[in-house]
Order: sequence, then structure tokens, then C-alpha cells
Amino acid sequence: MSKHLETIESPADVRRLSLDSLVELSDEIRDALITSVPITGGHLGPNLGFVEATVALHYVFNTPSDKLVFDVSHQCYTHKMLTGRKRAYLKPQHYNCFTGFTNPDESEYDLFRAGHTSQGVSLALGLAKARDVLGQRHNVIAVLGDGSLSGGEAFEGLDNAAVIGTNLIVVFNDNDMSIAPNSGGVYENLRELRRTNGAARENFFRTLGFDYRYVEEGNDVRALVAAFEQVRDIDHPVVVHIHTRKGKGCAWAEENPEAAHMVHPKVSPESAQAAPTETYQEITRAYLSKKLAADSDVVIVNAGAPSGVGLTPEFRASCGSRFVDTGITEQHAVAFASGLARGGAKPVFMVMATFLQRSFDQLVQELGLNRSPATILVFGAGFYDIDATHAGTLDIVMTANVPGITCLAPATKAEYLSMLDWSIDQTERPVVIRVPERVIEGDDGFDPARPVGWHMVRKGSRIAILSIGNTIELARHTAELLYERDGVQATLVEALNYSSFDERLLDGLLYDHDVVVTLEAGILCGGFGEKVARYYGKTPMRVVCYGGKKEFLDRVPTDEFFRMYHFTPGDIVRDLEALAG
Amino acid sequence: MSKHLETIESPADVRRLSLDSLVELSDEIRDALITSVPITGGHLGPNLGFVEATVALHYVFNTPSDKLVFDVSHQCYTHKMLTGRKRAYLKPQHYNCFTGFTNPDESEYDLFRAGHTSQGVSLALGLAKARDVLGQRHNVIAVLGDGSLSGGEAFEGLDNAAVIGTNLIVVFNDNDMSIAPNSGGVYENLRELRRTNGAARENFFRTLGFDYRYVEEGNDVRALVAAFEQVRDIDHPVVVHIHTRKGKGCAWAEENPEAAHMVHPKVSPESAQAAPTETYQEITRAYLSKKLAADSDVVIVNAGAPSGVGLTPEFRASCGSRFVDTGITEQHAVAFASGLARGGAKPVFMVMATFLQRSFDQLVQELGLNRSPATILVFGAGFYDIDATHAGTLDIVMTANVPGITCLAPATKAEYLSMLDWSIDQTERPVVIRVPERVIEGDDGFDPARPVGWHMVRKGSRIAILSIGNTIELARHTAELLYERDGVQATLVEALNYSSFDERLLDGLLYDHDVVVTLEAGILCGGFGEKVARYYGKTPMRVVCYGGKKEFLDRVPTDEFFRMYHFTPGDIVRDLEALAG
Repeated sequence: MSKHLETIESPADVRRLSLDSLVELSDEIRDALITSVPITGGHLGPNLGFVEATVALHYVFNTPSDKLVFDVSHQCYTHKMLTGRKRAYLKPQHYNCFTGFTNPDESEYDLFRAGHTSQGVSLALGLAKARDVLGQRHNVIAVLGDGSLSGGEAFEGLDNAAVIGTNLIVVFNDNDMSIAPNSGGVYENLRELRRTNGAARENFFRTLGFDYRYVEEGNDVRALVAAFEQVRDIDHPVVVHIHTRKGKGCAWAEENPEAAHMVHPKVSPESAQAAPTETYQEITRAYLSKKLAADSDVVIVNAGAPSGVGLTPEFRASCGSRFVDTGITEQHAVAFASGLARGGAKPVFMVMATFLQRSFDQLVQELGLNRSPATILVFGAGFYDIDATHAGTLDIVMTANVPGITCLAPATKAEYLSMLDWSIDQTERPVVIRVPERVIEGDDGFDPARPVGWHMVRKGSRIAILSIGNTIELARHTAELLYERDGVQATLVEALNYSSFDERLLDGLLYDHDVVVTLEAGILCGGFGEKVARYYGKTPMRVVCYGGKKEFLDRVPTDEFFRMYHFTPGDIVRDLEALAG
Repeated sequence: MSKHLETIESPADVRRLSLDSLVELSDEIRDALITSVPITGGHLGPNLGFVEATVALHYVFNTPSDKLVFDVSHQCYTHKMLTGRKRAYLKPQHYNCFTGFTNPDESEYDLFRAGHTSQGVSLALGLAKARDVLGQRHNVIAVLGDGSLSGGEAFEGLDNAAVIGTNLIVVFNDNDMSIAPNSGGVYENLRELRRTNGAARENFFRTLGFDYRYVEEGNDVRALVAAFEQVRDIDHPVVVHIHTRKGKGCAWAEENPEAAHMVHPKVSPESAQAAPTETYQEITRAYLSKKLAADSDVVIVNAGAPSGVGLTPEFRASCGSRFVDTGITEQHAVAFASGLARGGAKPVFMVMATFLQRSFDQLVQELGLNRSPATILVFGAGFYDIDATHAGTLDIVMTANVPGITCLAPATKAEYLSMLDWSIDQTERPVVIRVPERVIEGDDGFDPARPVGWHMVRKGSRIAILSIGNTIELARHTAELLYERDGVQATLVEALNYSSFDERLLDGLLYDHDVVVTLEAGILCGGFGEKVARYYGKTPMRVVCYGGKKEFLDRVPTDEFFRMYHFTPGDIVRDLEALAG
């Protein structure tokens, strides 16, 4: 069944095989992926489509001397199987031995950690230039998906590569899908290139100065080997455009390319039962459905990553022309939203925290400086059990420190809905809403007429706890434990607005409080707690900040996060007791 | 001499003129610019090239009902002259009544504040979509320069516009120059389009799905009027590619397009004498010349904006293939530098602080997460008398809060050169060096063997002043005044590394200090001082932070900055006296 795969310890073993055996090896790998990924979770569709190309690349090129760079790198599973890490895909219990993306800490065959899109050509071009400067000789190959082409950084890299004019082989993996269906004018050109077997009059890559080859059978290992052999050791930049099938070989994945892009691990019946009955993705969808019906000025914007923010195909279809997928273009999406707002529409840009990092300058210039009343809903912000490439812990840094942006962190569902309603309808300023992770019902006495202020949930004395978003639960439990152990009635405050302070509230605490505790699910550096510490810097108030360290963490279970960062009632109470001496 | 211009109060007056008169008006405007800009300073070349096009746009289109969006907007002077602001260009004493870029606070004809590149199409597309959603009817025109086309955001906007498929007229102003000569593969295609009068086989814009028109005589107002009339009220996206001459009509500007891109105001002989004899641009160049000669692995990278960082044409030429202009592509440039570093070269990316905002995600992912030992030299960080669009006050936010990046702020020239040398040669980590504004000679006893630690300049007691970079001068003067007025011998510390703390030093201060003062030329939110405040949050130490407010400021003289932010020895000492009660 896996007669070849079991013999493969490194690409050198691949290079010993016959072409016929490469075909069999590819089938074995595909079988393994179809078996394992639905169990472990992971990027199913992208990997099934790129099996043959990976086998052919390692067969033709002399890796690791020749350098192979994966854009996004979510299509690297076959590469990992061929480079000493196959057990992750053969034995589900080993899946977590490795990250889901390329990682130089794992293997000399991996050049970079990657996870966001469109950077692969730039990284590869850097390697190629370094090779030339150092007087070395080897091939540099960048693997770029058609989805990534919509991101401007890919254009920047290709455009620059054309003038640097050295050996750089861009394997352009075209399966006519991004995470969702492609969106962008260039995709019509790609369709035409596929339709004409690469001979269309207009050719995007050639306009940039690239040499160009086309391979219609992108899942035929023989055709790929032939094509790659032709460009090996080439002395100028070339695109090898290969037409592949996303989800290839798995009927369900082929028919459901969006759902099969990334699958979640199979869960046990017990944990499925424990799963939340309602998510913020659903809540947001339900709210927006009504809002879109009631207000024809509302426009929903997403940058090519709809699944994480709950924009299902059905919902997108229901929006008609008032849903815009801008492609994987966070820079453009924010500027576009600014334009929509200036033009009198009511844009709602829905984005994952990790991807919003691409828009920092646009947050500053197009939103903050221009005071454009767009609404940005940031999902996935906080501590999640996820690859470091996709961490959403820097969102407060890049929103709360920008002049002119109002940043809101609701704690409860009622607060979230009030803020959303207020934000979409106001016309004064850009608003970022940090969508909470967990749904908390109730409103804690929140006043919907004052959605951007702070909310004092309970007035106590001596110790005040300021919470951002969902951390109100931790604040409550900490307060309970404080009372139980030390008889302290702590004050609880929801800092619903984390871009500006309720100074009257903070000043008031000076009269009957000694310690202010801040809680935020994000890195502390540049975050909310530090601002509170500065505010009280001249006063006797002690400020103790809880949040994340400035570090990258891979797939750390949330519980462990909490222990590491003293993000538990027990830790906090012990810390405060120690502080009180 | 200015018979038409003196009658123009708004574009409605332009629309009353004959075609012949438009030609005369254009000449009058050009004369005014050639006379005034060298006195006031400003973007000379870009504006001289775009006189006729601006006149033709306001003649053909019904502004402000039709919406005109300028990418970058440094080419908007004629637009300002036609929309009620001509006095700024006719009477130099009025120049500072208006900003150097479009600004809705100044005029209803200005849609956005802009100053960075490549966002214009995105903003215009937002307006166009809003128009359609709101059921309005008017033209939306985006003015995009050829330099801006290298920025990926322009690609993202064009690519998205093609599929939205509504009225959007992109006037592509092609003068075959960016700030410096263009760099990128697409420019060869533009040359071919110019050579063939727009009929070349390959056409970048058509590959994205744009309709396309070409106007060879981009400084002929009649030809432009005819071309714009053809596309007025068009029902789909179209590029009108116009070939203009940068610096048109001013022989010096035509012959020196890079020098004439932006000219500095004429200075009086006295202030010229008071100007510093040496700049960090010169120091860096001199250092790099030697370094490049001594070490063949060093590669200098710049993203299409060489002048601000001192990369003169002569120096660039002297670097040969070891200087790379990536185009106006800060995202790609950082990823490219990461690739260079991973490949074993020694990249030095030189960039203005304001433009580095485009690279936040790449700082996080391609540098921090990948630990790539690239060196980034950040110029223009701090408080400068400059338009808000170009402020460099957010650099600490976007570097010091990112895991894995070592951030250095030298105070003196000796420290800067030591750090540069250390950073380029080390192979462990990405390093950002915040290039100081003013040259301070001497080394204050700095130990070059320990370039990334903190430096205690003087040990005192009671009050400690932590300074970042050039603020050591303010620290010294404050210490002198403190001694004079209050007899306090303050401790002085250069926090040369602002991404991590010298914890032993900070802990040591707890024994004999009551107050720590932090000084940074940047906004306080998310900055250095806040981290110090958090560090001491649990202790009795009082922390007082000096720096900028979270706000946008336009052309505020540095002295005024200092007064507003209590950034003077007198203010600080008075504040500390008040704190001591």
C-alpha cells in the first residue's frame, strides 16, 4: 500500500525512483493525506492539489542545495512527508510534533516560517540575490498559489524580480480558488491562459517581464518533471504556470473546495456536546442580515478570508452586490472601506486579527487621519491554540495606539450588538470592534446609550480590576476569590473603549483604591495595561498588568497560556497577596 | 501675465473658458509654480508635469459632484490653485495656510488626506461603490502616477476595480519617473506602451480587465480634454494612460528630475550657516562605502524613496549590483531583506519611519518570527515640522512591541557607528536602528563591546532620567537645571535598546530613587515610557513619561512640539517639583 513512501526518508530517496514510481508515490501520499487530515484537521484541499508538483520539484531539483520557498506554506504537507516528517501524516498521534507550515526549526529543507500570503516571491528573491552576491550557484524556486496573487506583496515581488533578472523559478499553482472563490481582474486573464494552454494574447506575467511556461496537467507528475527540467538552472526569472485541482482525489474536497480548504479535527461526541451553542460568527451574521435589510447603505467587505469571520457562502450570496470580496488585500480593503465611508455608505470590514497586521499604515492614514466612519470587526484576537504565524495578539498594539480610531471591546453579546449598531450608524470616526471569543449573555447593566464609555460593573474598594472584553469573567472569578480569601470587595470595570480612558473613573479610584489590576488577552507590550500604568505613574496607585509576553507561541493550549501568564483567579489573588506583603 | 488665473475662484470658472484660454491658463499656472515653489519648497517636478491634466479634468468633469482622488496627492498644486487656494502659490507668505497634500478640511474638492503612495485607486473605488449603493450618478476619477504603480496596494485596487466593473476612470500619469528612476518589470511594459502609442501587444492594464486609452501628449490640454470627454460617464473601469513630462517647463527640473521632485525652501544665509555641518545621511553613506568595500556580502535595500535616507544617485551607482531599489514596496522590501539574510547576505534596508508603517506585518512575520538578521535603518523618526501624512512618530509602536526584533536608539555618532557595525555582522536576529536626528559627537563612555545594552551615563540619586536617542541632550539639560534649582544629582541613562529592558539597572534604581523620568521623541501610547511604567507598576517608584500625544499634527514647528509636550528642561523640572509637592 505504501511501498514507496515507507522508503522515503529524504528527497534523495525520491530522486532514486523511476518516473512510474513517482506516480505511485504520489498516490500513496494522497491516500495518506485523505486518511489523516480529516482526523487531525488541517489544510486538506491545498495539499491534495499539490502532491505531484511537490514530488516533481524534489525529484528535479537538488534540495536542499536548491532552495524551495512556499508562499503561505499551507500546501507543504507533501514536502514535509518527503523531508523526514511523514509520521505526522501517517500517525495522527504525531501530528502535533510539527507545525502546519514550513519551519526552519524543523528541517533544513524549510527556509522560512510563513502563514500569511503573498510573501513567497519576495523571500525567494532575497535568497536568489544573496546567492548571486555570495557567488553561489543553485536554483531558487518559489511556490505561489493563484489566491496569493491578489495580494499586492506578490505583485511587488514579481515586479522587482523581473528587473533583478536572475535565476528565480516561480511555480504558479493555479487551482482557480483562493480560500473562497477568487476575486480580482487578473483571474480572468488566468482563465484565458488556461483556456488557451498558456498562449493567450494577454499574459499578466509577461507584462511584468517574466518568461512563462504553461502546464495544463498540473497533477501529472511526468508533465511536471518535464517542465521543471526545462527551467532548471535557467538564468532569468520564469513563471511555470501549472493547472492543478484543489482537493484532487477526494470527491468531497473537489466538490466543496471552500469547506475543504481547511478542515477541523474530528471531535469526540463529548467535546462536541461541550462546544458553544452560539458563536460570534453566527451572531454577527444574524445581526447583519437584519441590518442589510433595514439599511440599504450597509456594505460588507472581506479580504479573501471569509470562513474565519463567519461569512458563509450562503450569507455572502444573500448580500448581493453589498458584499465585496476584495481578494487577499488587507491594505486595499481598509482604503476601500475608507472610500466607501467617505462616499456615504456604511462599510463593515470583517477581518481576522492576524491578517489586519497587513493594514497598519492604512489604519493610520486612510482611517485615522481621514476620520472615515468605517467599522472594522476584528475576529480571532486574543489567546488561541494556533500556529504562531496566525496569532492574533498584536491587534491592540496596532489599533489602540493610532490617533483617531475608536477601539471597542465588548464583554457581552448585548454590548457587542449595541456597539455594532452604534458604530455602523455613526458618521464621525473609524471604529474597531474586537469581537470576543466566547458569548456571554446578559448586559451587566450596560447602558446602550453610552456605548463607547467604560462600564463600572461593581463599585468596591482597595482593588479595582479593569477588564477588556471576555476577561470580565476572569475579573469576576478573581473578585470572588479575593472576597473569599481576603474579604476584599473589588471594583469591577469593563474598559469597553480601549483607545481612550474614562479619566473621571480612573481618578475616582485614587480615593479608595490601592491597586488597579488590568486584564487583556493580548501581548502586554504596547497594549492596554501599559497605558493604565502610565496614567497612574505619578500617583501612589499600584498597577499590575496581566496579559501575554512579547513572544511567539505555537499551538499552545489556551489553559497553558493562562497558567504561563498568571491568567487565573488563583494566580492573580496570590500575586496581589504577595504585593500587599 | 495672469489674466485667466486671477479670474479663477473655482472649477466652474475653468469650465467657462475656451480651449485656447485653457492653454493660456495652464501656462500661467506653470509660471506661478516655477516662481513660487523654489521659494516655499515643495513638490516641484510632479506638479509641473500635471498642470494641463488638472486643468482638463476640472474642465471636463463636473467637480465636486464628480469626484477626483489624487494618489499620494503631491501633484495637487494646480488642483489647489483652481479650487480657491491659489494664494498659497502666488504669495509665498500664504504657502503655509494650506497643507502640501489634498485635505478635506481645506476644500470640498478634496476627498481624502493622502501622502503615502498607491492608495488612490482603492479610495476611489470605495467612492464608486458607495455611489452605486446609494443610487447616485457621477464620475469617480483616480489620478495615479507611474511611481505609485510599483506599490502592491495599487495592484490590489486595480485588480478589485476590474471585477466591481463600474464607472471608475484611472488617469495614469506616466512621466517615467518615481521619486528616483522607476524600478520594476512593469515599467518596461509602460515604455513599450509609450513607444507604440498604446498599441503594444502586452498591456498590463488589460490583463487586469481594464479598458485602456493612451494619450501621448499628456501636457497638451486639448488632447487631454478630448480624451477625458470620451470616457466621461463611462459604465466600466478605464485607464487613461497619459504621457507627461516631470518638471515640464522648468529646464533645471526637466534635467534633474530626482532633485526637482521635492525642493527645500530657500534659506537665509544666517540659517544656512546655522545648519548642521554633518548629517546622519552623510555619516551613513560614508560608513557604508567603507563597509561595502570591506565586505562583499553587504547589500543596501531601499523602497523607492532614496532621498530622505541619503542614498544619492552617486552613492547608489557606486554600490553597483549591491544596491537594490525595490520600487515603492515596503512590504516586499522587508520580506526581500529577510530572504537576503536567510541566504547569508547582509542586508541593510534604509527607510523613512513613516513609510515603514507599510511593513508592520512583515516586521512581525518575515523578520521577528523568522529571526532573520537583517538591519533596518529608520530615518525621520521623531518630532519633525512636517505634514501629518508623513509623521514619523509611530515607529516605536511598530518595532518595540514585535517579538524577536532588537530595537536600538543610539544617542551619539560613536554609538550609531558601533551599533551599525555590530548589527550588520551579527547573524542572530533582526535589528532596527532608529537613526537620530542630530549628530552628537563623543561617546559618553559607551562601551562598543556591549552595543545592545543600556548605558548609565551618570549615577545619581532620587531622580533617574531614561533617554532614547537624541533626547539625552534634554536629559542632560534637565539634570543640570534640577541640580541648580533643587540640588538633586539625577541619574542619566541612555536606553540604547528600547525593545528590552536592563532589568538589573531598573531594579537597582529602586534602592535610591523615587522618580524615573522617560524621554522619547514619539507618541507615548504604545511607546517606551509606558513599558517602564508597567515595569515599576507594582513598586513605589513614580514614573513620569514625556513624549507625544496620540494625535495628528500638521507642520508644527519643533519648538512648539516641545512646548506642547513639556519637552523642555524647565517644564520637566517644574513638573517634578509639583510632583514632590
